[in-house]
Amino acid sequence: MPVYMDHAATTALSDRALEAMLPYFREEFGNPSAIYSLGQTSKNVLEKCRARMAACLGALPTEIFFTSGGTESDNWILRGACSARRQRGRHVITTAFEHNAVLRTLEQMEKDGAEVTRLEPDRKGRITPQQLEEAIRPDTVLVSVMLANNVVGTVLDIPALAKTARVHRVPFHTDAVQAVGHISVDVRKLGVDFLSLSAHKFNGPRGVGAVYCRLPNRLTPLLTGGGQEKELRSGTENVPGIVGMTTALEESLEALDERTARLRGLQERIISGVLEIPGIHLTGDPENRLPGFCSFIVEGIFHSVYLVNEMNERGFCISSGSACSAASRESSHVLMALGYDKALAGAGLRITLGAENTEKDVDLALAALRESVEKVRREKPPGASLL
Amino acid sequence: MPVYMDHAATTALSDRALEAMLPYFREEFGNPSAIYSLGQTSKNVLEKCRARMAACLGALPTEIFFTSGGTESDNWILRGACSARRQRGRHVITTAFEHNAVLRTLEQMEKDGAEVTRLEPDRKGRITPQQLEEAIRPDTVLVSVMLANNVVGTVLDIPALAKTARVHRVPFHTDAVQAVGHISVDVRKLGVDFLSLSAHKFNGPRGVGAVYCRLPNRLTPLLTGGGQEKELRSGTENVPGIVGMTTALEESLEALDERTARLRGLQERIISGVLEIPGIHLTGDPENRLPGFCSFIVEGIFHSVYLVNEMNERGFCISSGSACSAASRESSHVLMALGYDKALAGAGLRITLGAENTEKDVDLALAALRESVEKVRREKPPGASLL
Repeated sequence: MPVYMDHAATTALSDRALEAMLPYFREEFGNPSAIYSLGQTSKNVLEKCRARMAACLGALPTEIFFTSGGTESDNWILRGACSARRQRGRHVITTAFEHNAVLRTLEQMEKDGAEVTRLEPDRKGRITPQQLEEAIRPDTVLVSVMLANNVVGTVLDIPALAKTARVHRVPFHTDAVQAVGHISVDVRKLGVDFLSLSAHKFNGPRGVGAVYCRLPNRLTPLLTGGGQEKELRSGTENVPGIVGMTTALEESLEALDERTARLRGLQERIISGVLEIPGIHLTGDPENRLPGFCSFIVEGIFHSVYLVNEMNERGFCISSGSACSAASRESSHVLMALGYDKALAGAGLRITLGAENTEKDVDLALAALRESVEKVRREKPPGASLL
Repeated sequence: MPVYMDHAATTALSDRALEAMLPYFREEFGNPSAIYSLGQTSKNVLEKCRARMAACLGALPTEIFFTSGGTESDNWILRGACSARRQRGRHVITTAFEHNAVLRTLEQMEKDGAEVTRLEPDRKGRITPQQLEEAIRPDTVLVSVMLANNVVGTVLDIPALAKTARVHRVPFHTDAVQAVGHISVDVRKLGVDFLSLSAHKFNGPRGVGAVYCRLPNRLTPLLTGGGQEKELRSGTENVPGIVGMTTALEESLEALDERTARLRGLQERIISGVLEIPGIHLTGDPENRLPGFCSFIVEGIFHSVYLVNEMNERGFCISSGSACSAASRESSHVLMALGYDKALAGAGLRITLGAENTEKDVDLALAALRESVEKVRREKPPGASLL
């Protein structure tokens, strides 16, 4: 097995989550909408999961809605929250370095008449309340700012931003897909109205996610049909998936402090080791970043795809940046939004550690990276430099 | 364990499907978009599943797109196909007895300016090509007619209806959620442009489904983001779920003829047994119906919820009609569309058999049903009669 260091892309399902899911595939498989006991057992499990998820996020059970993942959660909130306030206006504020589940969705909405302001982050990936303040208009119906960036790992100051939005009575959404399970996330402390999360980012199963929504009447449904989730999200509930997500989130949070301390140590080891290689620079915020999240720009390489391939041959899974666009040779829209030029934005490098990574893994990865960078710089097409 | 006779609502995951899924939860867990080997292995599995699903449906692999289930598939096709042809018109033709994933979605679309014609089925649940022919207008952009009804089990003559639509060059969608895995479904023989299906209806996992789409450029995406599924359906692919769905569908189809013969036998036994109870009538089409699908109207009871509860206490899982609306005391929109009055449409009864049901189960269920009907008629509020 290779050494997996791309935990920001996806994670393996935890043993405990899988164990918890198994009874719901074949034994307790009733449809939660059915009124016989087998259905009501499923319904009870579903509602217990809702309460447990809510407890993990500092929310009320009535504020949690289950979805098929982060992309659906983001799409639903953006379209649903804007549609619910359509009479008030059609202006949305976001940032230029959101995940594509937000950016592309807003692009679609622009085609249908929405107006979108994209706040520019600074080089570290920070957005100030002043920037937001200046962008808010009387017809602003939603602000959407991510909690943690998926390419450079910066954790944004959502409490301050949400507070600014609240002063103007504009609902605030945070895409917390990259953050939930990795840092403490409390919806009240964040002060947000909407939050999206995805299970497979914290050792839960693929194909399941959730939406936190403080005021359900502020949201129209994206998926209509059988009327599940209080008419807000139709579709037969994925009970095994929801059980797996809930279990994985609880498991992540139980060990959060200990794991964070360990990951911070490994992260420092990676960052200091990588920065010893000439022409590599840390991206994102050196201080406010996700634990275990290491991101860089590599000068002198044409595209980081070459580097990822070299590392793969040496037995390491790392990434060029966003998982979704890993296979494309495009430059990262995130790195460009942070002010890197197009050539450098194609030379991003992301190493994201998880609970199972060891000091030895890190040292081996560093050695492999030194070799790989040297080889790519020597043998592949030349790349750009920061100077 | 109770005797489960509500297979139209949902089914237990098959052993074989679960076995096939397991390696993809914790071992082969790479993100299919990642370029390292662990990711590419997932990508290969995904594409193999696409080809296998296509083979099951008589489609090309490029015509199959994975979703989170039947509701998303229906929502996507209805909204996406209409949006793609918006310049041509906004008229949609459907039937009055579709699943709510179609009906409610079209209601939403009406609020946004779509015009919807709902064809009325006859008492058996049939729609004629003439009805469709008369409803088609120059601005008709989509026809959506289900392959098999989920309340009365009628299998509709989709080849004839799709042919009529094709003559007028109107794209045709069939919601095949209740049919796939239970009867032979070949998209070419049906002659449809779009088809939706859901895994959990044929012993696949919850939270996964698919769309068949003959002409992908005729569909705009519903979920936007990372650009998965050729930019048509974003979201990290649920590889374990897709593997489970594919395996379950193949398994269902391998044993289809044998299982159909067995289920037809049990179905006749149920139907003739139930019709011996006075004041119970078969609903739907006596000939063209899903194997193992038995549906009735029970005279003299106020609502079939009472009957379902009585049967539950006797150890049998059966349904009043649609799974999604089982808990509500509303009358079935399907039975009303078939011409039953409101009181009788609340007295539906659905017994849907599966591979594990035996003759003994059927005989015990018939005895329990006789008792239950008698008790409900005696002790609960009185109901309507057909006469």
